[in-house]
Amino acid sequence: MYRDRIRLAALQDRIMSADEAAGLIRDGMTVGMSGFTRAGDCKAVPVALARRAATDPLQITLITGASLGHDTDKILAESNVLARRLPFQSDATLRRKINGGEVMFIDQHLGETAELLRSGQIGPVDIAVIEATAITETGGIVPTTSVGNSASFAKMAKQVIIELNLNMPSGLEGLHDIAFPVQRPYRQPIPLIAVEQRIGLPYIPIDPSRIAAIVITQRDDSPSNALPPDAETNQIAGHLNALLEREVRAGRLSPTLQPLQAGIGTIANAVLHGLADSPFHDLTMYSEVLQDSTIALIDAGKMRFASAASMTLSAPVYRRVLDNIEHYKSKLVLRPQEISNHPEVLRRLGLITINTALECDIYGNVNSTHVGGTHMMNGIGGSGDFARNAYLSVFVTKSVAKDGKISSIVPMVTHVDNSEHDVDILVTEHGLADLRGLAPRERALQVINNCTDPAYRDSLLDYYRRACLRGGQTPHVLEEAFAWHTHYRDHGTMLTPAGKPANEPLAA
Amino acid sequence: MYRDRIRLAALQDRIMSADEAAGLIRDGMTVGMSGFTRAGDCKAVPVALARRAATDPLQITLITGASLGHDTDKILAESNVLARRLPFQSDATLRRKINGGEVMFIDQHLGETAELLRSGQIGPVDIAVIEATAITETGGIVPTTSVGNSASFAKMAKQVIIELNLNMPSGLEGLHDIAFPVQRPYRQPIPLIAVEQRIGLPYIPIDPSRIAAIVITQRDDSPSNALPPDAETNQIAGHLNALLEREVRAGRLSPTLQPLQAGIGTIANAVLHGLADSPFHDLTMYSEVLQDSTIALIDAGKMRFASAASMTLSAPVYRRVLDNIEHYKSKLVLRPQEISNHPEVLRRLGLITINTALECDIYGNVNSTHVGGTHMMNGIGGSGDFARNAYLSVFVTKSVAKDGKISSIVPMVTHVDNSEHDVDILVTEHGLADLRGLAPRERALQVINNCTDPAYRDSLLDYYRRACLRGGQTPHVLEEAFAWHTHYRDHGTMLTPAGKPANEPLAA
Repeated sequence: MYRDRIRLAALQDRIMSADEAAGLIRDGMTVGMSGFTRAGDCKAVPVALARRAATDPLQITLITGASLGHDTDKILAESNVLARRLPFQSDATLRRKINGGEVMFIDQHLGETAELLRSGQIGPVDIAVIEATAITETGGIVPTTSVGNSASFAKMAKQVIIELNLNMPSGLEGLHDIAFPVQRPYRQPIPLIAVEQRIGLPYIPIDPSRIAAIVITQRDDSPSNALPPDAETNQIAGHLNALLEREVRAGRLSPTLQPLQAGIGTIANAVLHGLADSPFHDLTMYSEVLQDSTIALIDAGKMRFASAASMTLSAPVYRRVLDNIEHYKSKLVLRPQEISNHPEVLRRLGLITINTALECDIYGNVNSTHVGGTHMMNGIGGSGDFARNAYLSVFVTKSVAKDGKISSIVPMVTHVDNSEHDVDILVTEHGLADLRGLAPRERALQVINNCTDPAYRDSLLDYYRRACLRGGQTPHVLEEAFAWHTHYRDHGTMLTPAGKPANEPLAA
Repeated sequence: MYRDRIRLAALQDRIMSADEAAGLIRDGMTVGMSGFTRAGDCKAVPVALARRAATDPLQITLITGASLGHDTDKILAESNVLARRLPFQSDATLRRKINGGEVMFIDQHLGETAELLRSGQIGPVDIAVIEATAITETGGIVPTTSVGNSASFAKMAKQVIIELNLNMPSGLEGLHDIAFPVQRPYRQPIPLIAVEQRIGLPYIPIDPSRIAAIVITQRDDSPSNALPPDAETNQIAGHLNALLEREVRAGRLSPTLQPLQAGIGTIANAVLHGLADSPFHDLTMYSEVLQDSTIALIDAGKMRFASAASMTLSAPVYRRVLDNIEHYKSKLVLRPQEISNHPEVLRRLGLITINTALECDIYGNVNSTHVGGTHMMNGIGGSGDFARNAYLSVFVTKSVAKDGKISSIVPMVTHVDNSEHDVDILVTEHGLADLRGLAPRERALQVINNCTDPAYRDSLLDYYRRACLRGGQTPHVLEEAFAWHTHYRDHGTMLTPAGKPANEPLAA
């Protein structure tokens, strides 16, 4: 039944088991694997590699699109296969090894990895392992539910292993648009000027002689682990919708808005869901990942087209989209993440970007990655690509975490991923800070008054006022700037036993 | 003698005094003025405005390209004319008012200001004041030694005041290339694919009916205040040249390198001077400012073409270039800063960018702006535009400042302008850290061992090792992270009386 999916007959004799294919990967190699936010990842070869490592230890550099499903990062980390990992991950076990210094993790802007590989500044990729729906008559690879960096890996790797996943409907062919920036010098403009435009091929073109193995699989993607909207995320969505309505009334936006981007995860997904109840229409999306919210907006007739590098859906929505792929294919396109996240295209299209902050400070600097300034959560992902080049850069977060023991708004963030220059709007369930055109001292009052949880608000205002006595463009009391964080580290809460934030002056 | 420079006869009756023209500016207005890194600034109207404010107080929002010459920011600040200032400045008096909270300073990526104005998210500009070499038959404005944001201001302002500077040679006409991104939706690609390419007009096209005043001036630009190369900047240049030679040998660069960018100021200028002694040839530049070093490389036959938004030269070099402008015009072009700093063009061309760090931390995060984390120096300028989109992002700094009392390499920077993600190479006089493809723990050892002054090296290593005991992707001892900075603030040095950095454990 799978032979009709390998349309170049000469490749049929490359079919082998996952264990045999994994045998091509040798100690010290750099391996590029498909997979972006759990979608379209390889499902057999990495597991076989981990199995083999139990008796034949080896270590590799693993490059992917973004995070993987099926506990693959966990399994590879536990079997000590990972020496180096880039550019993103979201697995608890791997995270522990990264933070323990056992795995070197290179946290990159997701739009830059392919460029760095192409210029030889990282890599080279020895072997690519790519999940496919089909192989064309010319040996071209039709991806599955993500493109990510797969096209770059396949193009640059010395050898390519294909995982042909029979659970993926053949109708996925035609969903993808594969294009690369041309090599320098005299690189040409990327011709993309509209979200729905196709500028490349529906498959990854490669020399079929480099296809070293084809492994047959039959397994669905891991479902999205985003939580459904709740009261607070609905409030965040409400504040953002109100802002966008004001922008439309002011004539700065049309009711179709600008193309939307939303980061992976619960809050950004919930905010996008909130647009279903908005007066906006004919929306478009130009993002790195499509979540349930995108499909909901399309189904509701609110969104006319969405472009991304992957689609990461809950189990029922995944089923519905794949079973009706011919319907959805006219409204969706999946591109390489170098194109979905490319500064050239993003600045040209002018997006409204919605990304999640781990914490934000009173001046609007955003920490997207490091808990307590030191411990990696997932990675910067595409937040930097999108926020820097946005028409309107929105960051969202709940005002507190851990039942109020952590304030997401702090005097100074312990790590900066997206600086004040790239943060236009901050939204929590309490309200929205519109920071456009404001100096830091003005930004601080907006953030403190509009976004902070009441339990922390007076204390932040007190910090800010005392900082202003010392002067500066961006006033701070350096010796107190991280007091909440060290108190949390030592006591499990940013609050004192009296219920006050831990930087309150002793005399107060 | 100046009437032949106003080639649209109908405009000749708009000539008036600077005082009369300044009278058009009213309290509360937003004024866009030409001027970028001291070049091509308005030389008469701002002074007249300050004079008037002595008896007729008024406050404005002043937007420029970048910094101004002729003490204009000082004069305007002292006369309390400035309520708000963006996107850059470098004046000591204005800086004091900014840090005192008296002037609201909005520190922006220099490539973004025009975009924010165009979309109505800042502004609108009431009056533009633009220095010109000539006015064409159609009323087009021929700029002088900078373009900066002048073209955007002239296009968007309700009224335009022109300062026609007779000291500027008529031969400057033809030096400029004025083009804008097209309004959305369906914005087209910017067609620039080579440094020397012209994509626009040699003048700023505007409706002449909006030209409200023409003021005749006769004054040179303020000379550059960059210092000549010294022993340490020569060492920095040597380390960078050695790296570039290694890159050429590795086949990653050709001997013509990639187009170069260098930030304003002494160190970047000196590093560029150092390329005169390199084996590279047929160099090109795509920068925001041309300094003496660019002219020296052109004169030496090392550089074949340079593109920027302004040229800021020392007095003798300024004289030589203006007196021989027909010769230099075939090797130079000045563009709007939106184009010189545009992410689309920068990522496409693939630059080697050289920018100056105020301080850098052991993980390669760069503070470009805030002394002690709080007090503004000049502004982020174009460093973010260039570093983020670079082929190779280099930051340079001397390892110490204030006779060794400040280490430019610190445990944690007190403000982040350019994050680890955007810093590939760090160079001091002691050596070079090649951070490409490295995880933070690996970056730290490179930075500490290669770039730090010996007086601070052991202490940084000790900080790093103790931080690692606490774990993390980016290990820190939060409560000590700013100890050097607070010690400097309180004692005027980062060193203890024993000559050790101030975070040494007490028992040591």
